[in-house]
Amino acid sequence: MATQAIRVPMSGPGDVSGVETLFKNKTIRAEDVIAILAKTEGNGCVNDFTRGYSTFAFQTLLAETLGVSRDEAGKRIAFVMSGGTEGVLSPHAMVFTRSRKSPGESNGGKRLAIGVARTRDFLPEEIGRMSQVQEVARAVREALRDADIEDASDVHFVQIKCPLLTSERIDEAHRRGLTTATVDTYESMGYSRGASALGIGLALGEIDEEKLSDDVICKGWELYSKVASTSAGVELLNCEIILFGNSTHSSSDCIVGHSVMKDAIDREAVYTALRSVHIDPDSKDKSDLSRIVNVFAKAEADARGYVRDRRHTMLNDSDINSTRHARAVVGGVIASIINDPMVYVSGGAEHQGPIGGGPVAVIATVAHNN
Amino acid sequence: MATQAIRVPMSGPGDVSGVETLFKNKTIRAEDVIAILAKTEGNGCVNDFTRGYSTFAFQTLLAETLGVSRDEAGKRIAFVMSGGTEGVLSPHAMVFTRSRKSPGESNGGKRLAIGVARTRDFLPEEIGRMSQVQEVARAVREALRDADIEDASDVHFVQIKCPLLTSERIDEAHRRGLTTATVDTYESMGYSRGASALGIGLALGEIDEEKLSDDVICKGWELYSKVASTSAGVELLNCEIILFGNSTHSSSDCIVGHSVMKDAIDREAVYTALRSVHIDPDSKDKSDLSRIVNVFAKAEADARGYVRDRRHTMLNDSDINSTRHARAVVGGVIASIINDPMVYVSGGAEHQGPIGGGPVAVIATVAHNN
Amino acid sequence: MATQAIRVPMSGPGDVSGVETLFKNKTIRAEDVIAILAKTEGNGCVNDFTRGYSTFAFQTLLAETLGVSRDEAGKRIAFVMSGGTEGVLSPHAMVFTRSRKSPGESNGGKRLAIGVARTRDFLPEEIGRMSQVQEVARAVREALRDADIEDASDVHFVQIKCPLLTSERIDEAHRRGLTTATVDTYESMGYSRGASALGIGLALGEIDEEKLSDDVICKGWELYSKVASTSAGVELLNCEIILFGNSTHSSSDCIVGHSVMKDAIDREAVYTALRSVHIDPDSKDKSDLSRIVNVFAKAEADARGYVRDRRHTMLNDSDINSTRHARAVVGGVIASIINDPMVYVSGGAEHQGPIGGGPVAVIATVAHNN
Amino acid sequence: MATQAIRVPMSGPGDVSGVETLFKNKTIRAEDVIAILAKTEGNGCVNDFTRGYSTFAFQTLLAETLGVSRDEAGKRIAFVMSGGTEGVLSPHAMVFTRSRKSPGESNGGKRLAIGVARTRDFLPEEIGRMSQVQEVARAVREALRDADIEDASDVHFVQIKCPLLTSERIDEAHRRGLTTATVDTYESMGYSRGASALGIGLALGEIDEEKLSDDVICKGWELYSKVASTSAGVELLNCEIILFGNSTHSSSDCIVGHSVMKDAIDREAVYTALRSVHIDPDSKDKSDLSRIVNVFAKAEADARGYVRDRRHTMLNDSDINSTRHARAVVGGVIASIINDPMVYVSGGAEHQGPIGGGPVAVIATVAHNN
Repeated sequence: MATQAIRVPMSGPGDVSGVETLFKNKTIRAEDVIAILAKTEGNGCVNDFTRGYSTFAFQTLLAETLGVSRDEAGKRIAFVMSGGTEGVLSPHAMVFTRSRKSPGESNGGKRLAIGVARTRDFLPEEIGRMSQVQEVARAVREALRDADIEDASDVHFVQIKCPLLTSERIDEAHRRGLTTATVDTYESMGYSRGASALGIGLALGEIDEEKLSDDVICKGWELYSKVASTSAGVELLNCEIILFGNSTHSSSDCIVGHSVMKDAIDREAVYTALRSVHIDPDSKDKSDLSRIVNVFAKAEADARGYVRDRRHTMLNDSDINSTRHARAVVGGVIASIINDPMVYVSGGAEHQGPIGGGPVAVIATVAHNN
Repeated sequence: MATQAIRVPMSGPGDVSGVETLFKNKTIRAEDVIAILAKTEGNGCVNDFTRGYSTFAFQTLLAETLGVSRDEAGKRIAFVMSGGTEGVLSPHAMVFTRSRKSPGESNGGKRLAIGVARTRDFLPEEIGRMSQVQEVARAVREALRDADIEDASDVHFVQIKCPLLTSERIDEAHRRGLTTATVDTYESMGYSRGASALGIGLALGEIDEEKLSDDVICKGWELYSKVASTSAGVELLNCEIILFGNSTHSSSDCIVGHSVMKDAIDREAVYTALRSVHIDPDSKDKSDLSRIVNVFAKAEADARGYVRDRRHTMLNDSDINSTRHARAVVGGVIASIINDPMVYVSGGAEHQGPIGGGPVAVIATVAHNN
Repeated sequence: MATQAIRVPMSGPGDVSGVETLFKNKTIRAEDVIAILAKTEGNGCVNDFTRGYSTFAFQTLLAETLGVSRDEAGKRIAFVMSGGTEGVLSPHAMVFTRSRKSPGESNGGKRLAIGVARTRDFLPEEIGRMSQVQEVARAVREALRDADIEDASDVHFVQIKCPLLTSERIDEAHRRGLTTATVDTYESMGYSRGASALGIGLALGEIDEEKLSDDVICKGWELYSKVASTSAGVELLNCEIILFGNSTHSSSDCIVGHSVMKDAIDREAVYTALRSVHIDPDSKDKSDLSRIVNVFAKAEADARGYVRDRRHTMLNDSDINSTRHARAVVGGVIASIINDPMVYVSGGAEHQGPIGGGPVAVIATVAHNN
Repeated sequence: MATQAIRVPMSGPGDVSGVETLFKNKTIRAEDVIAILAKTEGNGCVNDFTRGYSTFAFQTLLAETLGVSRDEAGKRIAFVMSGGTEGVLSPHAMVFTRSRKSPGESNGGKRLAIGVARTRDFLPEEIGRMSQVQEVARAVREALRDADIEDASDVHFVQIKCPLLTSERIDEAHRRGLTTATVDTYESMGYSRGASALGIGLALGEIDEEKLSDDVICKGWELYSKVASTSAGVELLNCEIILFGNSTHSSSDCIVGHSVMKDAIDREAVYTALRSVHIDPDSKDKSDLSRIVNVFAKAEADARGYVRDRRHTMLNDSDINSTRHARAVVGGVIASIINDPMVYVSGGAEHQGPIGGGPVAVIATVAHNN
């Protein structure tokens, strides 16, 4: 199984020309695309329609290239759009391909392997609650098998796109006499991200099932996954899972590694993540940095109101949502280390790493001497 | 001449209790305060009233402590408030004192020296034009003398608080049949900051006078000062200058140094600034970092739309002003290096360092072995 | 008892010059001021420091004019600042005076009477819960007596300024092992406003006590007061009540009346409120409109997501808080009817009028033929 | 020539289901659609991608229904999306059809007639300058002929969608050594709207050609069209014109009329516009209001900083762009009069009506007794 990971700049949420060129140049085949993951330039919050726009544009491109309907393209390929390119972050798409032509082939070591899966659609009253956690866990296990990864410790990043509650959806549940996890649409994004992350932790054995209940979701912050990255979007009703790890069954030029940032300015964690893919950040020779395909990180404003014992104002800001502040910071810190602002930083890290922090993963090409 | 620099956290723009405690504890005497410079938690743009609020609150405190009127306190002490604590930035005040009790006394090396000066009030039609540049240059030279610094190369940071145009002020000029540099209130902040920075560069010999004209202000970006930091605020009509450098005539526990960030993620420049005050950022022993009193930096979104050849979206964002994005990034980068988010990052770096970058200065206590 | 109500434009949150002029011209005496209520130009949300700034500036003015301390001025006079002048709304202050020189004197009919009262400070865990409701009810009854109004049906407007939860306050409660009504700082403004409004309804007999509990606060929207107007601000920990009605014991040039807007575009309710003070909005002669001293209204985005069966987008907007949208609309509707944008529209109408609507009160001078 | 105008609610910028249903129900034929005009729920400013998203979604629907390419659909049909549904405004699309089956047929009076035209693409340096004005004027004359309207006084509304400058486009002009009308992307929207409006005024004889020059664009506010409505969007490089008037050659159930609001709260102008289509707003019987198909208005914050001599804060607000404030107000005023918030209010009224005001047009079905 051959796996590829390619990063493509985007000039706007509807710009699919970079990926189109990859098809035209025969760099990749549309048939092999299993996932497209993009950072789009919306607000990353409830009314961020850049995610839906990009999804629609990429689905149309894939449908037309593959000669299938948009629905069919949507079923074959996982589209995960994360809104928000605050600060220096630069809009881009990641295209992941998998070719089954040479099953079991390996380069002689563990290489990047990707698995995808989907949950069923959720009802409004399920979002942010245990039914979401458990259905996500089921789907993550499915993605693990799909990636041909045997050991959960070889999983370094699990990206989930999950639904949120809108006024309409909350209303619909109320009409059926049911409550929702929250009646605040913005807050619902956190609940859905949190439940998805706990589902990842449950599937990968990071979290004990008996510790989980509706009550700990977005409350019991000591429970978290170290590899979860979950984004909520208005454009879907189910969860789409893309799992990244290393597998001996994969042939790829890439490997993946990760670490966990303990807060938004934890540059040591970024160094550790780089070292996990054999890049030395202390080296005077910066050429190793060019092996980086992308860095994936989660960002959030510390819910306790402090970073390194200093008061921050992100949670009291009614003009800019705290996730926007947090993405700008984490994006800046990572960009300053790898000399590249085109990284994938996603906001809202509920149950994804410790409170105020979050996972940071790196996909890099393998060094010639590896 | 003894100089002190003390950093105090603030719990809100009206919180002067930290400085009040310094007076009560006799850590400093109100009589010796020459300048208070604060980062307040507003939007840092036109309608940021946290600056005026803090100024009013500090003036009231100083007036009551000194037993003088608020106006008199405003005349004796320079109050420079910079709005915007995006990302991890933490609201705080810097109090600078100067005591002339022991004139000419020195610790045997150059130490932190501070000079202050004020321009006259500007008419709306002068803001962002050569009359502002020249009057600022005059006042900077006055501040240099006030600081007892002989060599302009010993100046490491010049903070100016300058006025902006409001609808009312523009209107007033129009009624007198005159134009203003711009009719956009937000844009006027840039013009005023730019003219002030060029005034600094002119006074310190960084910029040739013959290259200056109304036409180059906020256009000829190749002209800049490497030590200028200018902030615009609605609450004043003149410019207030605080100049920081090292002088053999000063006795102080502190020294100041600087470097210039070439863009918002230039961590090497932050390292250079730290080394200029004898702090080794590569040292495994992080204890040297505790010598830092504060880091002062300017931030702006690169006007060319790119950072390290990657498109950024800060200038096309109609929801969040680009200076807010930029402060979040630069604040995050510096905080990640010095392990402290309570730093002074101010937005809008027109003619302050190269386009997209800006000066970064460090005040630190002197190492015992220095 | 003589009562006056005067409206004064403000050029910024720190501009107290209009009121200062009233003192200098001897239009009013500082000794007679019982309340100052202002619309300030902040965001009206958590980090709106224009309220604190105005309060500080007015307290300083009153303290200096009365020759007392700011604290003492704060105790004598109720300062209620409501942030947010979206759309055409124009920043201004309302000064209310009361002189007891001629007790019991009356103009031969019911005239404007004002009562003020304060609650004790609330702990974080009390905000938005029944202890707030009950303490507010107690204070409203006190204000009713203070206004010399015998019949609750003569009360036409009750303005309350109430506290909110910040990250720090929530944290403080958590450290004592207690929960707060919400952990979302913005949401806490709604809980505090809602509990205050229910306290008004309880005190005035609009709401049965047995229907009230923690569970109905910000949930049981069928419970509401028709005369409540409550605003939350970060700058206080207790509630300040100003109650407006008509009393035979009052001598004043003014009367007050009210109606209830069923939604944000209910112009018929504005007409009814005008008619209640004997102004005919259908009259071709618009001169009667000049009798209006001010209109006071509450605005909110309909929580059901619809206005007149049309979907609105205010609750899904993560860039602009819904209260800001709502104030702009209600302000525009009222201004278009009375030909004056300098009206007092305050956001967040939880339990203040029906869901999506809110009270609208008018203070007007008495017509010569009344 | 038969003309239809139908209003359809949208649940999001990608929701084309309402129009799809019109096709499925055979209410209209896709072949007859000449224009789709929609209010989408973005910020209406530079980074409003809801316009591009809706355009893409509607083009895809029409392409698939007509069996042509998206490009071909884009050429046949004018798609004009206006972003921003602040306050009570409700997202919707207007579909306009024209069938030439019965040319010259008339109902015995002037009825709604629609003409469409397009300009060529503009270079960045042309936007907001005389080359845009003149090319727009040419296209408006073409649209007038297309609508079969003989007398310019029968034109009641001309909607233009025009391009704006992005950082990339400005940069591109600079690389060719040319200047642009402005370097501020947000400001460029105003220049493009202004130049388009002047082009309309020129074509319809409202403005003398000799008074026009680059210098008066967005400066000489006394020059304006009374029927222009122009919106800028990032998704196009040319102007698309849709002209609405009444013609004896048209057979339609609808007529159109207009008036001009002198400011954002000018309800008398809305009354006048209603009367122009024979609706009496003073009638106690509100049933006539159901004849309204839609109201089209332009909104802007008065550039002088005052509405009815009261200071407004829209132009000093760095958190919310002034057009967003203005749309909320005008939308609320119109909705309060016609009891319906689903109206088309578009922001930025440069040279569209007097300063601070703008045109207001009404399309209504003809009364049975007309």
